[in-house]
Formats: sequence, structure tokens, C-alpha cells
Amino acid sequence: MKIRTLDRAAMEAAELRQAQLTKPSGALGELERLAIRLAGMQGRVCPQVERVAITVFAADHGVTVEGVSAFPAEVTAQMVLNFLNGGAAISLLARHLRARLEVVDVGVAAELPARPGLVSAKVAPGTANLARAPAMTPEQLADALAVGRAAAERAVADGCELFIGGEMGIGNTTAATALICALTGGDPHALTGAGTGVDDATRARKAEVIARALALHGAALANPSEALRRVGGLEIAALAEAFLACGEAGVPVLVDGVIASAAALAACRMVPELSDWLLWGHRSQEPAQQAVFEALGARPLLDLDMRLGEGSGAAVAVPIVQAACRLHGEMATFAEAGVSDAH
Amino acid sequence: MKIRTLDRAAMEAAELRQAQLTKPSGALGELERLAIRLAGMQGRVCPQVERVAITVFAADHGVTVEGVSAFPAEVTAQMVLNFLNGGAAISLLARHLRARLEVVDVGVAAELPARPGLVSAKVAPGTANLARAPAMTPEQLADALAVGRAAAERAVADGCELFIGGEMGIGNTTAATALICALTGGDPHALTGAGTGVDDATRARKAEVIARALALHGAALANPSEALRRVGGLEIAALAEAFLACGEAGVPVLVDGVIASAAALAACRMVPELSDWLLWGHRSQEPAQQAVFEALGARPLLDLDMRLGEGSGAAVAVPIVQAACRLHGEMATFAEAGVSDAH
Repeated sequence: MKIRTLDRAAMEAAELRQAQLTKPSGALGELERLAIRLAGMQGRVCPQVERVAITVFAADHGVTVEGVSAFPAEVTAQMVLNFLNGGAAISLLARHLRARLEVVDVGVAAELPARPGLVSAKVAPGTANLARAPAMTPEQLADALAVGRAAAERAVADGCELFIGGEMGIGNTTAATALICALTGGDPHALTGAGTGVDDATRARKAEVIARALALHGAALANPSEALRRVGGLEIAALAEAFLACGEAGVPVLVDGVIASAAALAACRMVPELSDWLLWGHRSQEPAQQAVFEALGARPLLDLDMRLGEGSGAAVAVPIVQAACRLHGEMATFAEAGVSDAH
Repeated sequence: MKIRTLDRAAMEAAELRQAQLTKPSGALGELERLAIRLAGMQGRVCPQVERVAITVFAADHGVTVEGVSAFPAEVTAQMVLNFLNGGAAISLLARHLRARLEVVDVGVAAELPARPGLVSAKVAPGTANLARAPAMTPEQLADALAVGRAAAERAVADGCELFIGGEMGIGNTTAATALICALTGGDPHALTGAGTGVDDATRARKAEVIARALALHGAALANPSEALRRVGGLEIAALAEAFLACGEAGVPVLVDGVIASAAALAACRMVPELSDWLLWGHRSQEPAQQAVFEALGARPLLDLDMRLGEGSGAAVAVPIVQAACRLHGEMATFAEAGVSDAH
């Protein structure tokens, strides 16, 4: 499948419409540009994003044995249950957005009970330690990609107008930062952040672990798919392929924080046309995400010092995207309202 | 009346609650700080801002004879009708927020027909040209303040949990910029923006007009109330007093763009304690607003290149404030969810 091309005619019609709305030209700033891009994605002059799908991929990381996280690895499984019980940030954000929320176990170490809203698609009980071996075998990578694609296809089949990919995985800022360093040539000491909130000594160790992984995997990291396999994660691979499936199906993606951004960057390195389909929810506190923004020329909608993951930053940004569409679609034109245009 | 003091006990309890929610400490960034501040304003551990009131004050400006705007002055009245007919940006944003929307004619030059949702409280048919005389007489200033206070009191009586003051007035970025220069000592050539979208020559003329006004009124501008009277506007005065009335009643204010920011700064110069009650919706493209942020140490929630006014930027930011409250009030604690806390 190929990434869909944007509908330029719809974008031109949307731009013309923007110029006729009862406001000074350009006065809605980024909201105007958003509405025009979404018109191109949805192939209609007045786009809408009322039906939002949030898919949270959960997986564990072998690299946690290196002591890179403030939380014990069992929190991955505990948080999956919290998502399903409605008590996590993403649960209630989804509830208030009336969004479809699906949680996919693509590689949680613990066995999880069958539960409504949980898709069991465990590829492996977590990755291998990326500082000592490839995180995934080629088969595991292929399986994780397939899990992501199937999840996106379910969301698309359900009629979603905007897709958010969230994640849960203790240790995954280490994998995401390693992947971003591999794909951008960034320095791990500069791009490693505090993750869930490690102290300075742990952050330095985390950067060292990433540097060691980059040295271990070496030239193989030049290939984006190999980089994803060697220093990524099962949920990161699933996210990357879910985003590609959205681009193929013509569904806009609202990217969340550093983990989702790492997956989006890997996907764009595999298929550059995907970038047309990506909107960026927020600037997180993780420095590696900034390297993704720079690599892709991206501008996030929000900048609120968030660093939670789960898809939460993107979910908080959804009302901004909805406001852009509603303003574009519902405002009166100068002619309709009998308002004089500029001199 | 006095500005209410924040409830420190509620803020401490809210901070304790934040530390127990199932997320890394601090991971919701600005949303955590917002929830804690709102707890202090509302005097309850779990604040909520579901009931939003938007009051748009409309007035004309004598300074438009200097050719400072891209739009003719009659647009003020035309846009008031557009607000009431539901076609303006603020109309549909209010509709989607299920907010109370009231439009107050505090000084529109044209006679407006009686209409539901329109409060007729015309103090004068616009201000005098601030570049040649004080914009208002002392009586007009007092009347405009009273109109603002009464409007805020209606919103408070209606049970609003968050107040947004919007405005409409062709020429009012000139008045707002002059007022901000007067109150901060800023240079009009640096702080004058494009308003509704004037060209460079008009912007230069606008800065000259402001510089002339500052020279004309001179030392009298050192008094914030006199600055408001001499270089402000009827809607700016109404906004300033509405904000003060909110602070006295204990209702948080979400400040909009450069006009509302100028009013908020004037109000804070009159009663510094008001700043506790102000949240800042967005960073507009008008440079003078930045001078207000610096003067008050304010950080806006959004930065989307908007410059429309009407209260629109604040209205777009409301879901961020609501998300902060909902996350704070509805997330599970570590104990409730059986999730392990950090090491």
C-alpha cells in the first residue's frame, strides 16, 4: 500500500474559504493552517475530527535491568489494568473526548487477564536488553509491526477521523532516545532526559547505556528498520506501523510525546510521504523529541511541560484540532454576515 | 471590596493529591500547576471549570480617524450582530463550550437594535481620539468601569466557574498598545503590531500615533487609572473592572489576547493582588502582549499565532484548563489502582 496523497483541490478550496470568514486574514494563525491541512487529508473543504481513536500499545523492555527507570518494570502491567479500570490519565481523557480507547498488549512481560478493551497480541514478554543484543529478532519485529497495523485498521474500520497512538512501557524513553539518536545522529548525552523522573546520576547512566547500545549496533543502525529492531521496542514498532497504516488509509495521526515521536520518525525514515499525515500534539520535556521536530520540521500544538506518555499529550491537544475544524466549518463569511472586509 | 486571598490549605491538599495520582511526579507539567492554583481559587481540593462565562465588550475608538486599522470603524457594529447571529468565532466557540455568552455595548458608535444576548450599556458613541485628547472624560471612565463590574456580577450570579472577557472595537489594538506602553515604559515602535493586519507603512503610522499620544498625556500616565482614561478605551476599562470584580468574587479569569491583557495589566497596577486570579489563555501575535507577560511574570497556555480577539484565544484554551481539573479530580491514586510508586 502507498501513503495517500493530500487532496490539493480541497486544500485550495479550504484556503479560499478561510479568506472569506469574518475575521482578519490569518487571525486564527495555526488553527487556519491546521484546517487547511486536514481538508487535504480528508478530501473535503470542511474537515471534522469528532471521532477520535486512541490505541495504547504496552510492552516491556529488557534494558530496564540496566537501572534506567525510576519505576519497577511491573508497573507496565499494573498501568495496563489502570487504563482498563478508567483511572489513568488517558482513560479519563478518552472518556471526556468520547474517544474509542483500545489497549493492546504487544509485549508486556506479565500475563494479563482477558478484559474488555484489552487486545492480547503479545509478541514476546518484553524485548531483549538493547545494550547487549538486538531488542527484537526479525520475526518479533515483523510480528510487532503486524500488531500495530491491525490495530490501526480496526480504528479505521470503526470510522475514526483522527488517530492517536499511545504507549506504556517502563524503560521506553531509553529505547525511544536510542532510536532517535540512531536516526538523527544525535548525541545521547545531550538527548537523554529524565523519563519518568530519574535523578541526575541515573540519567547519566541511562545516557551511557544508550551510547553503549549505539556503539554495539554500529553501522546496522543506518537502516531505519534495523534501527527499530535493534534499539526500539515492541510498542514502538507497533506505533510506527500503525502510523503508516493510517497514512495509507487517509486518516490523520496526532503524535504524542517522545516515544510516539520516535516511532513517527522511524516510520517517516521508512516512508517519507507519511509526514503529510502527522500532526504533533505537544512538546514534551524529553530533549530527544526536539531532535525529531527538527528532523521533520514539525511544530507541536501544545507546550505544557508534560512528560507522561500514554497518548495523554495528544489527547489534551484534540480540542485544539476540533476548534480549528469547527471555526473553519461554522464561522460566517463576510457576505453571509454583512460585515465589511478590509480596506 | 477586596480581592480574595487564595485558599492555601486547599492548594496544599491539591499538591498532596497530585503526588498520589498514577503518574510520575510532575509528569503533567503545567496542568498540575493549573489544578493546584484553581484549588486555591475555588477553595476545594478538586476544582472544576465546567461553567464558563464569556462576556464580550464592544466599543468604538476615536483614534481610528488617524488611519490605524485595516478595517472601517463600522465593522465594530457589524461584528456585534455577527456575534449575536452565531457566525463569529467567539459565538461558535461559546456554543461548543456550552458557555454563557453575553455581548455588552459599552460604546459602539452606531445604534444597535435590541436583541437577546445584547446588553445595551452605551456610555458614549466611542472614545475621543487619544492622540489629541483624553479618550474618556472622568465620568465616562467611571461609567465604563461600572458597566464592566455589573457584567462580571451577572456572570458570577449565574454560577460561572471561569470568566473570559472578550472585546470588539476597531482601533483597539492602538489603544491597548498605548496603554501597555504607558504602564510598562515600553517603546511604541517596538511594541506596535499589525492588529487586524495593517501593512508596514500603516503600522509605522500607528506607532507614531501612539508615540504622539504618550507625549501628549505625559506624566499623567504614571497613574494607572489616568492611563486607562487617557489612552484606553471604553471596552478596555469595562474589562479591567470586570476582572477586578471576578477577583473580589473569587472567580478565576482566563485572559485573552493583547486587549484583554492590557486591561488585566491596568487592573493589576490598580490592585496588584488581582494577579492571583488571572490565567493566561494564549500568546497572541501582538508584541505588546509580551510586555504584559514580562511585567506580570505570566505564562500563556497556548501559542498558536492567533490575533483575533473577541475572547477567542482564551476560549480555545478552556479545554486545557478543563483537562487539568479533570485529570486532577478523576485520576486514580497509586493506592486505589494498586500501582507501584517510584523507587
